[in-house]
Amino acid sequence: MTDVSVAAIAAMVGGRLIGNGELTIRGIGDLRTAGPDRIGFVRHARYAAAAMATGAGAILLAEPLETKASQIVVSDVDIAYAKVATHFHPLPHAREHSVHPSAIVHPEAELEAPVQIGACAVVGKCRIGSGTVVMPGAVILDGVKIGRSCVIYPNATLYHGVQLGDRVIAHAGVVIGSDGFGYAREGTTWLKVPQLGTVVVEDDVEFGAGTAIDRGTIGNTRIGARTKMDNQCHVAHNCTIGTDVVFAAGAKVAGSTSVGDRCVFGGNAAAGGHLTIVADVRLGGATVVLRDLLEAGDYMGFPVMQKRKWMKTQHAMQDLLEMREAYLLQKRAAADQN
Amino acid sequence: MTDVSVAAIAAMVGGRLIGNGELTIRGIGDLRTAGPDRIGFVRHARYAAAAMATGAGAILLAEPLETKASQIVVSDVDIAYAKVATHFHPLPHAREHSVHPSAIVHPEAELEAPVQIGACAVVGKCRIGSGTVVMPGAVILDGVKIGRSCVIYPNATLYHGVQLGDRVIAHAGVVIGSDGFGYAREGTTWLKVPQLGTVVVEDDVEFGAGTAIDRGTIGNTRIGARTKMDNQCHVAHNCTIGTDVVFAAGAKVAGSTSVGDRCVFGGNAAAGGHLTIVADVRLGGATVVLRDLLEAGDYMGFPVMQKRKWMKTQHAMQDLLEMREAYLLQKRAAADQN
Amino acid sequence: MTDVSVAAIAAMVGGRLIGNGELTIRGIGDLRTAGPDRIGFVRHARYAAAAMATGAGAILLAEPLETKASQIVVSDVDIAYAKVATHFHPLPHAREHSVHPSAIVHPEAELEAPVQIGACAVVGKCRIGSGTVVMPGAVILDGVKIGRSCVIYPNATLYHGVQLGDRVIAHAGVVIGSDGFGYAREGTTWLKVPQLGTVVVEDDVEFGAGTAIDRGTIGNTRIGARTKMDNQCHVAHNCTIGTDVVFAAGAKVAGSTSVGDRCVFGGNAAAGGHLTIVADVRLGGATVVLRDLLEAGDYMGFPVMQKRKWMKTQHAMQDLLEMREAYLLQKRAAADQN
Repeated sequence: MTDVSVAAIAAMVGGRLIGNGELTIRGIGDLRTAGPDRIGFVRHARYAAAAMATGAGAILLAEPLETKASQIVVSDVDIAYAKVATHFHPLPHAREHSVHPSAIVHPEAELEAPVQIGACAVVGKCRIGSGTVVMPGAVILDGVKIGRSCVIYPNATLYHGVQLGDRVIAHAGVVIGSDGFGYAREGTTWLKVPQLGTVVVEDDVEFGAGTAIDRGTIGNTRIGARTKMDNQCHVAHNCTIGTDVVFAAGAKVAGSTSVGDRCVFGGNAAAGGHLTIVADVRLGGATVVLRDLLEAGDYMGFPVMQKRKWMKTQHAMQDLLEMREAYLLQKRAAADQN
Repeated sequence: MTDVSVAAIAAMVGGRLIGNGELTIRGIGDLRTAGPDRIGFVRHARYAAAAMATGAGAILLAEPLETKASQIVVSDVDIAYAKVATHFHPLPHAREHSVHPSAIVHPEAELEAPVQIGACAVVGKCRIGSGTVVMPGAVILDGVKIGRSCVIYPNATLYHGVQLGDRVIAHAGVVIGSDGFGYAREGTTWLKVPQLGTVVVEDDVEFGAGTAIDRGTIGNTRIGARTKMDNQCHVAHNCTIGTDVVFAAGAKVAGSTSVGDRCVFGGNAAAGGHLTIVADVRLGGATVVLRDLLEAGDYMGFPVMQKRKWMKTQHAMQDLLEMREAYLLQKRAAADQN
Repeated sequence: MTDVSVAAIAAMVGGRLIGNGELTIRGIGDLRTAGPDRIGFVRHARYAAAAMATGAGAILLAEPLETKASQIVVSDVDIAYAKVATHFHPLPHAREHSVHPSAIVHPEAELEAPVQIGACAVVGKCRIGSGTVVMPGAVILDGVKIGRSCVIYPNATLYHGVQLGDRVIAHAGVVIGSDGFGYAREGTTWLKVPQLGTVVVEDDVEFGAGTAIDRGTIGNTRIGARTKMDNQCHVAHNCTIGTDVVFAAGAKVAGSTSVGDRCVFGGNAAAGGHLTIVADVRLGGATVVLRDLLEAGDYMGFPVMQKRKWMKTQHAMQDLLEMREAYLLQKRAAADQN
C-alpha cells in the first residue's frame, strides 16, 4: 500500500507540517479538483489562489498560506514533488520472480530472484540482479551484467558483455554496446576494425528512447553514475562520460572524447572526437564543439564560444547588414576619389 | 480486386476524361514501359514526349496532349497520383481477424475484429479498433487505446496508457509514451520526476521510423490531427503539436513547447522548451529556435531569424573577410598617426 | 581454431618478419601484460618503450626496434591491426544451420544453409544467403533478399522487398525500407503518397544502431558498396548514395539527393533534398548543405562554405564586436558633425 499520513510525507521530504498530520493521503491531485485524500502542490505563486480554495487534504509549498488543507512547507517544491510522486508512482520493480513463458532465457543465465522478464524478451547467458524488470521484446545478449532494480524497456538491446550498475533505466529502443564506428582506410575503401571493448554504465544512469552507446575499440566506453540522457543521444566508442552529466535529446559525442562530471549538453549539442571537456561545462542547444573545453562555464554556438561572447556576437550580427552598406559606400567613395 | 475503369479513376480524382473511359486499369506504370492496362503520369512538362509515345492505357496529366492513351486532366497531378496510387497500393489494413499464434495478447485486451496481430507482437490489456494492423515484434503495453485502421510497424513500442486516434501510422522503431526527461536538481545530482501523464495522438498522424514522443509530466503530450513526422523526430513531454504540422527528419521540440497548426519544421530543425510557436510558421532545415515565434512566416538559422533577413545576413557574411581587412588597415593607419 | 603462427600473421598482413616465425599466437594482447602467445601493436612512437620491454610473443609495428619479441614490420599498422583483430575476433557468422524454435519463419522462406536465426526473430517469405546471422527480435518482412554472410542485429527491421548484398551489417534498431516521407498537399492538409519503390543495399555496407533508410517513391533508394554509416543516420526516399561513402553519427540526407563515391559526412552533417553532391566531398561535423556541391573538397558550416573560407570567416567573426564598436563610433561622429 502506498497510503501514507501527511506527517509521514512531511518526514519523507524534510518539510515543516502545518495542520493535521494524521490525515491519510492516497495519491497526488490537482489543486482545483482534488478530494481530501489527495496532496496538491504549489510550485508557482500563481497557484496560491487555487491552493487557498482547494479541497485537497494537503499541500506541498514553499510559503505557508491561508487554507483548510494541511500544509507541508519545504525549501524546494520540485524536489519534494519528485519524492512524493515517486512514492505514489514508483518505477517498475520486480517484487515477485516471474519469467513470461514466451520469454527465451538461456539455461545458464543467473537471475537473482525476484526478477521480472516480459513476453518475447530474449535473455542470453547473463547475470541480472534482483528487482530488475526486463520488458517485452528486449534483447540481452550473452555476457551482459545488469545490476539490481534496473528497468529495461521494450525492444531495447544490450549487446554481449555490456555492464550496467544498479537502478539503470534503458527506455524503449535503446542500444548499448553496438560496434564503435571504427575503420582503417585501405586505399579508397574502409576495413572494419573489430570492436573488442564493451560499455560500462554506473549506477542510477537513465537512457532515453532510441539512445545508442557504442562499445570500446580495445578498452571500454564509460558512462558515470547518475548521468541522465534524453532520447536519441549518441555516445561513440571509447568515450568517458562523467557523473551527474545531463544530455538533452539528440546530444552526441564522437569517439574517444572525455566529458567531465556535471556537464550539461543542450538538445542536439555535439562534441567532436578525441576532445577533453572538463567538469561543469554547460553547452547550449545545437552547440558544436570541435576543440577542447578546458574551463568550466557556459558555451554556445557553431563553432562553440563562451556563451556571453556568443550572445554579444549574435547581437552584433544584427548590425552586419548596415555595417556592410556603410563599408560599400565608403569603398565606392574611395574609388571615386582615385 | 483493385481493377478499375478509366472513367472510375477520373471520378476518383475529380478529373476530366478524354478518350476511352471503359478501359480497365490494373495498376500504375512507367510511361516508357507500361502496357494498355496501366496508368501513367505526367508531373513535369519534360515527360510530355514520353506521354505522347506511351503504350499505357491512360495518363493523368494537367494539360491534354496528342496521344493514343485515354487522358484524365486534373488541376494537381500530385494529389491525383496520391489517390490513384493509394487505390492500387492501399496501406496495410486488417480485413480478416488474425492473431498470430506466437503473439502474446492479454486475455482482457479488447480487439474490435477484424484486427491483425503479427508474430511475436506483445499486446497488453488495451483496446484496439477494427482494421488496425500490429506488425511483428511491436509491443503495446497496458491501458493503450488504438483507434481504427492504424498501422503499428515492427518493433515499435507504445507505453502504457498512450492513446492513438484512427488511421495513425507508427513506423518501425517508433516509441510513444516514454518518460519525459524530467529531474529535480538536488545539490549536484538529479532526482527523477515521475512522468504521470500520457500521449494523446489524434487521427491521421504518421510517425517515421525511430521517432520518439515522450509522455507528459502531469498532463499530456498532444499531437494534432493529420500531423506528419519523418524519421527520428523527437517531441518532449508536455508539448502540444497542432494539426497538419509537418516535421522533416530529425526535427525536435523540447519540453512544454506549443507548435501551432500547419507549422513546417525542416530537417533537424529544433525548438527549445517552454516556447510558443504560432500557426503557419515554417522553419528551414537545421534552424534553432530559442525564443517565441509569434508571427507566421518563414524562418531560418541558428539563432533563428526571419528567412529573408537570414539570407541577406548570409550574403553580407561573404564580405566579412574584406570588411575586416579594411577595418584593420584603417585601425593601423590611425595608430600610426598617433 | 584461430591459433596461428607469427609467420602466417606476417603473410596475412603482407609484413616483414624479424625473429621467430614459428611461434604460435592465440590472440591479441596489451604490450604491458601480454604473454608469449599474444601479439601486441605499436601504433604510436610513444609505445616503443613498452614494446621493447614486452612479454608478448610478437609485435606489429612500422619501425623495427630492440626487443625479444618477434616483429612484423608493416607500412600501415592500423590496417594490419584490423586484419589480425578480425582473424581472432571474426564477425558473427553462421557456420551451422540453426533456427531457434521460438523464431517464426515463413514456410516458403528460402534459407541457404547454413543460416542462423535467433530467438523471437520473425522472417517472412524472403531469401537469405548462407553464412548470414539474424539475431533475436529482428523482423524481416516478405520479399526481402539478403545476401551471404550478413549480420542483422537484434530488433532491426527490414521492410518488405528490401534487398541487401553480401556481408551487409545492420546494427540493432536499424530500419531499412520504411515509407519515404511523401505527401501531396491538398488545401491545408497532406495526402499520403504510397511509397512503391524499395531500398537496394550493395555489398559490404554497415549501418549503425538506429539508422533508418527510407524506400523509394517509385524507383529505389540506393546505398553503394562498402559505404559505412554510423548510428542514427537517415537517408530519405529516392537518394543515391555512392560507394565507399562514410556517414558519421546523425548524418542525414533529404529526398532524391545524390551523394557521390567516397564522400564523408561528419557527425550531424545534413544535406537538403534534390541536390547533387559529387564524389570526394568531405563535410565537417554539423555542416548543412542546401545547394549542389559540384566540386570535390572539404566543406564546413551552416550554410556550407569551402572549409578554408569557413575557417577564415570564423576567425574574422572574432573581430566582429570590435568592428561594430568602431562602426558605431564613426556613425555617431558623423551624426554629430551634421
